[in-house]
Amino acid sequence: MTAKNPPIVLLTDFGLKDAFVGILKGVILSINPFGNIIDLSHGVRPQDLLHGGFLLSTAMGYFPSDTIFCVVVDPGVGGSRRPILIRTKNYFLVGPDNGVLWQAARKNGIEVVLHLNRTSYFLSPLSSTFHGRDIFAPVAAHLSCGLAMEKLGEPVYDPIPLDLPIPEKKGDRLILTILDIDIYGNITLNISLDELRSFVGNQFWLEAGSARISKIYETYAQAEDRQPFLLAASSGFLEIAVKKGNAAKQLGIGHWNQLVLNR
Amino acid sequence: MTAKNPPIVLLTDFGLKDAFVGILKGVILSINPFGNIIDLSHGVRPQDLLHGGFLLSTAMGYFPSDTIFCVVVDPGVGGSRRPILIRTKNYFLVGPDNGVLWQAARKNGIEVVLHLNRTSYFLSPLSSTFHGRDIFAPVAAHLSCGLAMEKLGEPVYDPIPLDLPIPEKKGDRLILTILDIDIYGNITLNISLDELRSFVGNQFWLEAGSARISKIYETYAQAEDRQPFLLAASSGFLEIAVKKGNAAKQLGIGHWNQLVLNR
Amino acid sequence: MTAKNPPIVLLTDFGLKDAFVGILKGVILSINPFGNIIDLSHGVRPQDLLHGGFLLSTAMGYFPSDTIFCVVVDPGVGGSRRPILIRTKNYFLVGPDNGVLWQAARKNGIEVVLHLNRTSYFLSPLSSTFHGRDIFAPVAAHLSCGLAMEKLGEPVYDPIPLDLPIPEKKGDRLILTILDIDIYGNITLNISLDELRSFVGNQFWLEAGSARISKIYETYAQAEDRQPFLLAASSGFLEIAVKKGNAAKQLGIGHWNQLVLNR
Repeated sequence: MTAKNPPIVLLTDFGLKDAFVGILKGVILSINPFGNIIDLSHGVRPQDLLHGGFLLSTAMGYFPSDTIFCVVVDPGVGGSRRPILIRTKNYFLVGPDNGVLWQAARKNGIEVVLHLNRTSYFLSPLSSTFHGRDIFAPVAAHLSCGLAMEKLGEPVYDPIPLDLPIPEKKGDRLILTILDIDIYGNITLNISLDELRSFVGNQFWLEAGSARISKIYETYAQAEDRQPFLLAASSGFLEIAVKKGNAAKQLGIGHWNQLVLNR
Repeated sequence: MTAKNPPIVLLTDFGLKDAFVGILKGVILSINPFGNIIDLSHGVRPQDLLHGGFLLSTAMGYFPSDTIFCVVVDPGVGGSRRPILIRTKNYFLVGPDNGVLWQAARKNGIEVVLHLNRTSYFLSPLSSTFHGRDIFAPVAAHLSCGLAMEKLGEPVYDPIPLDLPIPEKKGDRLILTILDIDIYGNITLNISLDELRSFVGNQFWLEAGSARISKIYETYAQAEDRQPFLLAASSGFLEIAVKKGNAAKQLGIGHWNQLVLNR
Repeated sequence: MTAKNPPIVLLTDFGLKDAFVGILKGVILSINPFGNIIDLSHGVRPQDLLHGGFLLSTAMGYFPSDTIFCVVVDPGVGGSRRPILIRTKNYFLVGPDNGVLWQAARKNGIEVVLHLNRTSYFLSPLSSTFHGRDIFAPVAAHLSCGLAMEKLGEPVYDPIPLDLPIPEKKGDRLILTILDIDIYGNITLNISLDELRSFVGNQFWLEAGSARISKIYETYAQAEDRQPFLLAASSGFLEIAVKKGNAAKQLGIGHWNQLVLNR
């Protein structure tokens, strides 16, 4: 193993009870016996491209340069969607051209997008139902062995964009969308603390399910027990949290719900 | 690390919330500090030997030659069942002699079966409740260090067979069994597309819970939304799927249920 | 990779569906590209310090000397609790000073406790909500590169203790506490077989939900189907088990419930 053996990071919606993740790992090790395979998460909500993109763009920047991300959230497998590689400023992103790579690619800066069409680097025969196994894992493994990416396909200029919803302004109200709810029940909103401040100043209330929230704290420790509050989360987004409680359960709200911020 | 350091692939029914999986890894690294430990799945249904065997035989062939599979689905631990090593054409399979290794061993071709009875390669003292820790992980680790397998035990010729149920013919009907339901709700049947065709030709209907299914597609993309159909899955078996839906939930059927195929 | 590259073992309550675990791995690999990252478990019950400590102390001893455990169960993050490193006889334990490291540290023997306060080894800027990412993972990674621990902080002498509850004697009764329930439904009690014997001798009954248990077996194999019994578990603690069944479900009891042992 040398510094030339970048990690191959897996992000899928496969869950962990089936054999799919194990198969990806087997394919990679068959091509690169020294492959350094890292699980980012296999808990993307099934076929949820925005959620996959959110996890990827949240975690990506903590990995070393030249890390290869192999992303399989692929509801259109076997149809006309292209397999692609996006070379960003620091990383290689391999996956379907359905927008799942987009958030992360934009965040890090796109240098080139390749349509993966050199079938000699795929498994053969190529199935129409499991391109994670047949295309994305083999391509990631070949890259990790030092294969020049130009050998993998032709540049294309029209990757499918897929951005997170942005806050919607309606007079003195801002319509926010819930991006994610983590294991603790913390609710990630599609706005940063700075963006909130610039819209509402210091006085506001957020209608969130059964509650009206108007406090922002810097840490969980500062908050009162069981009172929902806002916090600048480690992801950079604003989050609704409850100390010694589960905000999502307490407020009764879920993924992609919309909330109203009033100033 | 050299090419002589084959991966040790773990497959268990331990789940991921307890310390069991971590303990296996600790034991392996204590014997082989360079051990390349790979998680296949720890989501085998508790004590379900056929399910464990199914996942193993589905994933095995994608791993490089000489991979060591350490399989712990072991309801009879502490009783009279033997610990065994099966050397197949390409792989080492380590686990209890209860049939869980059988499907994979037969698929790849059995070369020799050893009864693991050289206690010097076990942890000591040997417990009667956790042979994954005390026997299978240590044996897998010693193998990964290059130990000649002959040192681990005596050949035996009567490993416990355990095959998946096969389709049952009743006149113009074939009774099929559900082998697995994956995270997307896709339902794996115990028949391949070729086997189905040779029995029914082109005209058939499959009674599946509330539905009658008579369409086969090559990809999810070709199917109509929310209409159950058949597909040759990536595992080689036929599967019932629903595009933009969950077939198992929609049809209300579960593991080991039987379905009737009519011609 | 050399023998100087000890494994970094992760134990958290992050679960596996979010990006948190992936972020820890990215941070570690950015500091030590050869970091050998091992998942012990990410299934600690959210913010349950005793459960985290129990899993750590159960698994720790199976890992090789100098293994670095990076433990993140951290409800007080951002408050006044200190980040610490405990050097035990054989291991490095990195995590918050809230008691989660205590059981394991005491079991292996504490040599020195350091208050991690050298911010040059942290990520910058330091968040107030995710010290796993900003402090514990970076410190573990630097240790794995061979950094002398003295560079990481000052010795302190008052780490927060947090012990498992011990059996409570009330005349001829012993009040036991349930420490854990594993994936099979086996119930871990806060007493060893030897301790039980020294209190009750050979005759006893344990009131456990709907059942009175008075049998001890050495293996699952010896027990009768569906009859709850006691067993010296692989963890060293006594456990209530049901052969071909799930003891916790059958008896209707849960975590931290108390049971009465009568002699």
